[in-house]
Amino acid sequence: VSRSDGASGPLAAAAAARDAAHVLARLDADARSRAVEAIADLLGRRTDTISAANAEDMAAARAAVAAGKLAPSLLQRLSLDRRRLDGLIEGMRQVAAMPDLVGLVTLATLLDDGLVLERVTCPIGVIAVIVEARPDALPQIVALGLRSGNAVLLKGGQEATRTNRVLLATMREALAGTAVPADAIALLEGRESVAAILGAEHDVDLIIPRGSGQLVRHIQANTRIPVLGHADGRCHLYVDRAADLERACAIAVDAKVQYPAACNSVETILVHAGVAGAFVPRLTGAAVRPASDADWDTEYGDLVVNLRVVDTLDEALAHIAAHGSRHTEAIVTEDTSAASRFCDEVDAAGVFVNASTRFADGYRYGFGAEVGISTGKLHPRGPVGLEGLVTYKYRLTGEGHVVGEYTGPGAKTFLHRPLITESEVHRVQGSG
Amino acid sequence: VSRSDGASGPLAAAAAARDAAHVLARLDADARSRAVEAIADLLGRRTDTISAANAEDMAAARAAVAAGKLAPSLLQRLSLDRRRLDGLIEGMRQVAAMPDLVGLVTLATLLDDGLVLERVTCPIGVIAVIVEARPDALPQIVALGLRSGNAVLLKGGQEATRTNRVLLATMREALAGTAVPADAIALLEGRESVAAILGAEHDVDLIIPRGSGQLVRHIQANTRIPVLGHADGRCHLYVDRAADLERACAIAVDAKVQYPAACNSVETILVHAGVAGAFVPRLTGAAVRPASDADWDTEYGDLVVNLRVVDTLDEALAHIAAHGSRHTEAIVTEDTSAASRFCDEVDAAGVFVNASTRFADGYRYGFGAEVGISTGKLHPRGPVGLEGLVTYKYRLTGEGHVVGEYTGPGAKTFLHRPLITESEVHRVQGSG
Repeated sequence: VSRSDGASGPLAAAAAARDAAHVLARLDADARSRAVEAIADLLGRRTDTISAANAEDMAAARAAVAAGKLAPSLLQRLSLDRRRLDGLIEGMRQVAAMPDLVGLVTLATLLDDGLVLERVTCPIGVIAVIVEARPDALPQIVALGLRSGNAVLLKGGQEATRTNRVLLATMREALAGTAVPADAIALLEGRESVAAILGAEHDVDLIIPRGSGQLVRHIQANTRIPVLGHADGRCHLYVDRAADLERACAIAVDAKVQYPAACNSVETILVHAGVAGAFVPRLTGAAVRPASDADWDTEYGDLVVNLRVVDTLDEALAHIAAHGSRHTEAIVTEDTSAASRFCDEVDAAGVFVNASTRFADGYRYGFGAEVGISTGKLHPRGPVGLEGLVTYKYRLTGEGHVVGEYTGPGAKTFLHRPLITESEVHRVQGSG
Repeated sequence: VSRSDGASGPLAAAAAARDAAHVLARLDADARSRAVEAIADLLGRRTDTISAANAEDMAAARAAVAAGKLAPSLLQRLSLDRRRLDGLIEGMRQVAAMPDLVGLVTLATLLDDGLVLERVTCPIGVIAVIVEARPDALPQIVALGLRSGNAVLLKGGQEATRTNRVLLATMREALAGTAVPADAIALLEGRESVAAILGAEHDVDLIIPRGSGQLVRHIQANTRIPVLGHADGRCHLYVDRAADLERACAIAVDAKVQYPAACNSVETILVHAGVAGAFVPRLTGAAVRPASDADWDTEYGDLVVNLRVVDTLDEALAHIAAHGSRHTEAIVTEDTSAASRFCDEVDAAGVFVNASTRFADGYRYGFGAEVGISTGKLHPRGPVGLEGLVTYKYRLTGEGHVVGEYTGPGAKTFLHRPLITESEVHRVQGSG
């Protein structure tokens, strides 16, 4: 009997998701892949219904924009037309086809005769994702979540309510014909549902907020459940003394201008004094003005960038250590030792050499998609795809072994013999 | 110029540790190993001084025990005699000799011509460890911390103050002759130092409390820094219908009696109804009384154990899901499918088959030692040794690559060609 029977609301959804996660934990890779494919199939057959719901959301949003109640930039993120939907469905099929990462043995040690320790990858459990306007994020997250064996609770943006409802109803309907319970995915609505989830420690294992820094900080401050994400994306570009200035200029423009609202766009360009005279005039079109102290800690998300001239690589490293947000930092240089120092010493999820910070993205990294980007220092870090959605447990198999025999006089000693090399990863026989 | 110049106290120590961590981040494996060996050497030459300081702590503690102000059980944990010290030093040498885990490339992908993405393991940074009375934990933690490239702040138990001061002074002195700055390790004293560290988000990356559940919960509730540890160790032993009852009895006794105060000892034994009649009478000497609802959530840490008869494996799984603390859970069974279901479905850092829960320990797992045991679900999980003390960053190396070329009409497409197979782990060329 499911704990959610007869109840409703976010806590009941979380409890039902926990039950579903227990079922997911014992499904093999094919069953999880087939569920994602079934969802992709049904979404493909329902593109008309979905587009119609999205058109209603778009009409309401356009009216709100016209009335000055909504930012025009929201419209692009809200849109889910047929072309976008087709791309989304194709992406889900790619995730379904990716190698399975659950049930891998990443460490195996013979502790003693008949006593084998294995570290086995497993799903995290129940993941709650809070997204802003973008309805296209929901199927992506569902694909990554189910493929990696996790149940997913989704809180969508208010403006996308009609689209999200149709998406979720369709995806849950698709699961009915699979081994994955429909309750493995659920839509949460209303701000109060977020508050409820923040306290649901027993049934929610991870919260992924995808929205403003304010939202992320609010969630971090109000839950004991681990939170994955980034409150800030203050990325730096350091143009080294040994930089190819043409490359530096192209990267600076791309990193700032290509999509300034993105978390991986650059807020501050640090330029070595030795090349500042040649580099800065090249950056025409950029708004250059003297920066104040507060500017160094600002994420503009707009066509504004700080420019600071530094005398040494050390000064650039110190600036980044003081003002960076551990998201993504880049150096432009032809000097491999400067590049190497930058990569070793900068503490960020991404350290880039001669490439735009905008590449910090799950799709561009080849992860198929991402549920978010983590600026935390522990696993998972950076763009989080399938691999970031599995954890591990230690499995010990003995023949009645007790610790008492390994202590005191005449104690047995441990063998600690590796059964696989550190670098090997084997699938668990007969499972996963 | 170090930020700690001219200052003192826990925040200055944390800032100095952050500076030291930046130096550690660019040292190679040999330099870090040599530092640990140098510490082991000097500790070995100072055993007299250390034992003398410990004798003073022990005398003070014995007086406090006699006056009823301290539990007698503390004396054993406080003791650091020559034999224990020798074992400790030998353990440090083992950690120094273990394979290096920093600078490993665990993923490498050719995103496009000339654009290479690598995931490289790196130290976490600055780790603060709060231990209770046991002074022997300090050198162990220092060895694991420095070997994995992390700076370590140590808050020891009040009763071990003299021992801890000598240990830290000796270890810092030993670092003077190495490439590792002495500030990479520091001793914090007094309760107020813990409060200060909890707010030092900028300079502390991870907090590891090793003490009572009350201490762990207090720390979790009062910091935004990630906390690694376990507030509870409510471990279960499930004696299946298909259990070998002789093994079950030996494991039950070991898991409860061998060291009842340990977090990995068993608090509740679940027995299948089909064998309860034969098994329970075997458990003579155990205090069996009817259990109340609250008992199922109690960690006794004493010679008391709950006993519950269940009708099915599902009932045992449901009990563990409701009352377990995600530490370590064990099944005794000769039925491989029951064992497999138990391992797949139980959500805990350790899932054991036919072995005592007491094996959940970094030394017994072959990790050399442990800084703590994590009941969190994300990495690092379970006993945390060297591997749990490294994280990773994504390193992207291009030739001026910009994202703009991969979007819009005529966009370039990504290759996403794996350069190493998922299962390979390569050391970074020319580093680490």
